[in-house]
Amino acid sequence: MRNILNRNQNKAAEVRKLLASEKVMMVNIISSPGAGKTTLLECTCEEIGRDFRIGVIEGDITTDRDAQRLKKYDIPIVVINTEGGCHLDSHSISKVLGSFNLKDIDVLFVENVGNLICPSQFDLGETFKLALVSVAEGDDKPAKYPMLFREAEAVILNKTDLIPYTNFNIDKFRSDLRDINARVPLFEVSCTSGDNIKMWYDWIRMRLKSYLI
Amino acid sequence: MRNILNRNQNKAAEVRKLLASEKVMMVNIISSPGAGKTTLLECTCEEIGRDFRIGVIEGDITTDRDAQRLKKYDIPIVVINTEGGCHLDSHSISKVLGSFNLKDIDVLFVENVGNLICPSQFDLGETFKLALVSVAEGDDKPAKYPMLFREAEAVILNKTDLIPYTNFNIDKFRSDLRDINARVPLFEVSCTSGDNIKMWYDWIRMRLKSYLI
Repeated sequence: MRNILNRNQNKAAEVRKLLASEKVMMVNIISSPGAGKTTLLECTCEEIGRDFRIGVIEGDITTDRDAQRLKKYDIPIVVINTEGGCHLDSHSISKVLGSFNLKDIDVLFVENVGNLICPSQFDLGETFKLALVSVAEGDDKPAKYPMLFREAEAVILNKTDLIPYTNFNIDKFRSDLRDINARVPLFEVSCTSGDNIKMWYDWIRMRLKSYLI
Repeated sequence: MRNILNRNQNKAAEVRKLLASEKVMMVNIISSPGAGKTTLLECTCEEIGRDFRIGVIEGDITTDRDAQRLKKYDIPIVVINTEGGCHLDSHSISKVLGSFNLKDIDVLFVENVGNLICPSQFDLGETFKLALVSVAEGDDKPAKYPMLFREAEAVILNKTDLIPYTNFNIDKFRSDLRDINARVPLFEVSCTSGDNIKMWYDWIRMRLKSYLI
């Protein structure tokens, strides 16, 4: 296992160097299945796609369903099917980077395989990891799956429109998250209703501008 | 990887033999984080605990939060913390079986680590796998994560009370599931509102009676 992680780390360093030289920001989006990664990408393409050139890598065990949902945005999309594998690794990312014209991309969103555990252990060479968690999963996820929340540069709590229909305790969620990562930016949004999503747009725009200088 | 799976399989066969000789049914519950495994166990302990003697193995990366929630039922519970590991394996199960008095248990529920992928690859020696998926995860989960749905002896679709507040298409869910596993029993329930949960109770009772003969 240590060997696998070491080799992954070396290749990730290569990817990171390449992306930095091409001024491409790579965002590794990690969440449980069905937390809303693709829906986040849909609204982000819609909004951020006005000012920045977006590319997407879709990691999935099988099917290209998520990629199909993004086709309408006329952006370059590459699908990686892991065929049972529970995470993407830096070698699979490195292989598909050649399919993009990196000079024409500002931000490359990677939708990792839906899994709150294994993807956090594999550096893809990303600029940063984005953790996404849905209200419907319960307020105890940061405490129970701390690795991702420790590593993420930003956390999105999605599906806040469902709070009235669940026993989700937002104070508990916030305080558990703060115990693990005291300073991480937290965006409490609904990607479907649009509640509060502007905060995410503002943040990712600012992050992109500061990266592309 | 093949070595690991082979060793796991051998130990699982041992566990299965021991449990059969002790007439203990073991149910390996697998789902994404936050699909409702612990809530299902709460209501199942409440209802099925009247007629059958229940034991629980709680698999978690860290914390004993789920076990704490089940303490009120006065049943034997053992926690396995995987310390970052993304699934339980048959060796960890075998080790903790000694903590139970198997003669006093009819059914041992194993709450696996919240993960829709890796746990399906590891036989624990269970009598059968139970797949749990929540409405909030979206109707595309069987198609996107087929392994578990292929292997499960029963599927529970949980949180049906949230359907009115989401774009979950139950016909699509059913037909995708049927493409993968045409005959698997499907229970569409809400563990918190109790909707339709009686179907699950009736089925698990029947399954237990037929096993304990």
